[in-house]
Amino acid sequence: MADSIVKDVVMIGAGPSALAAAVYTTRENISTVLYEKGVIGGMAAITDKVDNYPGFPEGIEGMRLASQLQAQAERFGAEIEFGEVSEIKDNGDTKTVTVDGKPVEAKAVLIATGSDYNKINVPGEAEYFGRGVHYCATCDGAFYRDKKLVVVGGGNSALQETIFLTRFTTHIDLLVRSTIKASDVLQRELQAHVDAGRVTVHLNTTTDEIVAEDGKVNKVKATKDGQPVEFDTDGVFVFVGLNPNTGFLASSAIELDENRLIKTDNNLQTSMKGVFASGDVRSGATMQIASAVGEGASAALAIREYLDGLRQHVPERMLPTAE
Amino acid sequence: MADSIVKDVVMIGAGPSALAAAVYTTRENISTVLYEKGVIGGMAAITDKVDNYPGFPEGIEGMRLASQLQAQAERFGAEIEFGEVSEIKDNGDTKTVTVDGKPVEAKAVLIATGSDYNKINVPGEAEYFGRGVHYCATCDGAFYRDKKLVVVGGGNSALQETIFLTRFTTHIDLLVRSTIKASDVLQRELQAHVDAGRVTVHLNTTTDEIVAEDGKVNKVKATKDGQPVEFDTDGVFVFVGLNPNTGFLASSAIELDENRLIKTDNNLQTSMKGVFASGDVRSGATMQIASAVGEGASAALAIREYLDGLRQHVPERMLPTAE
Repeated sequence: MADSIVKDVVMIGAGPSALAAAVYTTRENISTVLYEKGVIGGMAAITDKVDNYPGFPEGIEGMRLASQLQAQAERFGAEIEFGEVSEIKDNGDTKTVTVDGKPVEAKAVLIATGSDYNKINVPGEAEYFGRGVHYCATCDGAFYRDKKLVVVGGGNSALQETIFLTRFTTHIDLLVRSTIKASDVLQRELQAHVDAGRVTVHLNTTTDEIVAEDGKVNKVKATKDGQPVEFDTDGVFVFVGLNPNTGFLASSAIELDENRLIKTDNNLQTSMKGVFASGDVRSGATMQIASAVGEGASAALAIREYLDGLRQHVPERMLPTAE
Repeated sequence: MADSIVKDVVMIGAGPSALAAAVYTTRENISTVLYEKGVIGGMAAITDKVDNYPGFPEGIEGMRLASQLQAQAERFGAEIEFGEVSEIKDNGDTKTVTVDGKPVEAKAVLIATGSDYNKINVPGEAEYFGRGVHYCATCDGAFYRDKKLVVVGGGNSALQETIFLTRFTTHIDLLVRSTIKASDVLQRELQAHVDAGRVTVHLNTTTDEIVAEDGKVNKVKATKDGQPVEFDTDGVFVFVGLNPNTGFLASSAIELDENRLIKTDNNLQTSMKGVFASGDVRSGATMQIASAVGEGASAALAIREYLDGLRQHVPERMLPTAE
C-alpha cells in the first residue's frame, strides 16, 4: 500500500521557485515531493555567475546557489526525485499527477517548471552559455559595461533588450534574420540609438557560429545578403523567444495566457483549485531568481492555507452527527 | 543647484525589499537613494536567526543578512541615508518627497517601509525579541519543535497562529486579555486542540512580564481574574496586531486597504502613478523576507519600465516639430 500514500504537496520542477516553496512547506511538516526532469536548480544551476540574487554581495556561482537551495529544502525533509510529469488530474480534494507514466496522489500541486529561452542552435552557443552567450539582459547586461556586443533577434523583445543594453555597451551589432518585426514605438527608440552610432542594424543576416579564443567569446560569424561576414564582440545576447514548460498541460483544464504561461490569481492559484504556479512558468513572471524564490515562498503559504481549508472540512464529514 | 538634481528613484525604507530593489536599479545605472528612519535591514536586521531565507542552508543571522543586502546594494552605487519621510507629492512626471522637512525630487518612488508588530510593552519583551519572544509563527514556529509555548492574543490571527503552532509544540497556554474575538470557524478548530489537551485557553488574563533565566526565556508572569499566575514556557509568541508604516501617507492620495496597507496593481504600482510599493507594507504581504525581496526585484523592473516610458515621451515634447 506504500504507493497509495497521499502526499500533501507534489511540486513539479526543482528550480529556485520550487526549492524555496519546499523550504517553507517541509519546515512546517507539510509532506513534499519534487519531480525534476532536468537539472536540480533549473536555469540557475547552469548560470555561470548570479550577480543580483539578494544576499550575496559579491554574487554567487549559479551552481553553488542551486546546491545551497537544494540543501536547505532537503534539510527540512523535502524529497527530490527525477521524473517527468505528463498530466495533472483533478479529483476534487486530491489531484493525480502522472510521473513517468505512474500515478502519484497529492492534496495540492505546485507547478514551477520554468521557461526555457529559445536557442538559435549554432556552434558555440551551448558551449559558451552563461560565459559569453546570454539570454537575459537584466541578469547579465551589467557584465558588459564599456564592452561591445552582438544581439540576435528582430522582435519586440530583441529591440527592447538592445535598447536596454545600450546603457552599458559602447556598441551593439543587431543581427536580424529577415526584417524587424516590432512596435513602432520601439523602432523609433532604436533609431535614436542607431543615429547616435550606438547600434548598427544588420537585416537579412543569419548567425552561423559563435567563436571564442582562449575560452573567451570574441567573434560572431554570420551570412549577410548571402555573403559571409564577421563581427568582433565581447559577448552575444540571443532574444528569439521564450518557451514555457507547459506542454504537459495541453490537455488539462489549467488556463494558460497567449504566451502559454500559466494564469494565476492573487494567491498564485491556477484555474484548477488546489493547483498553484510560481516562478518563470507563471504569467507575469520576471525571469528573475529573486522573484521566483519570493513567489515560491508566497505559494507555500497559500498552499498551507488551502490544506488547512481541506483539514477543516474533512473532519466535519467524518465526525458522527449529533442525531 | 546640487539640491535641485532629480533622482531617478527615491526609496522609502531600507529593509530587505528596498535593498533588493536597489540592487536591481543601481546595477542598471538608475540613480537611487534610500531613506531609512530606523535600522538598515529593517525587521530582518533585528531578527536573531533567519532560517527560511532561501540560499542559506543552515540559516543566517538576521544582522548578517541585512548587512550583506546593504553591501550588495552599495556595491552597485545605492546611496543610503537616514531620514524620515513625511509626505509624497505628485507633480506628474516627478514626485516631491519630503525628508526631514526638506524636499527631494524623484522621477519614481518605491515605498517599502514595512510593518511593525504591535507590542504588549511588558518587561522582558524587548530584551528577548527574536530570542524567546516572537511575532511571526511562520518565521520562528519551527524553532519550537516538541517545546511548550505561551501565546498572547485573542483575535483571528492569534487563534490562527496558535492552531498553526500546535504542529510543532507539546502544549500552548493561550493568554487572552478579555474574551476571544475570532471567527466561529477558528474557534471551532481551536476547540478541537483544547479538547485534545494541546492548548489551554486562559481568559481575562493580562500578561505582566516575560522572565528568563541564564538568558533563556522560561516563564511568563500574568494576572488571571485579578490573581497572579505563572506559566512555565520555552518561548512566547505575541499576536496583537500589525502596524503598517503608512502614517505618513494619511494626507496623500495613495490608496490603503482596511488594514492601512498600501494597495497595488499587478505591477506593484500604487494608485499614484510612478509610486510603487513592495514588501510588508503592501496589501497582501506575507511578512516573509523571501517574498519582500522578490517583490523588491519585481518592483525594480516595473520602475525601470515606468522610467523608460517617461524617457520615451519626454524627447517627443522637447524635439522641434516638423512644421
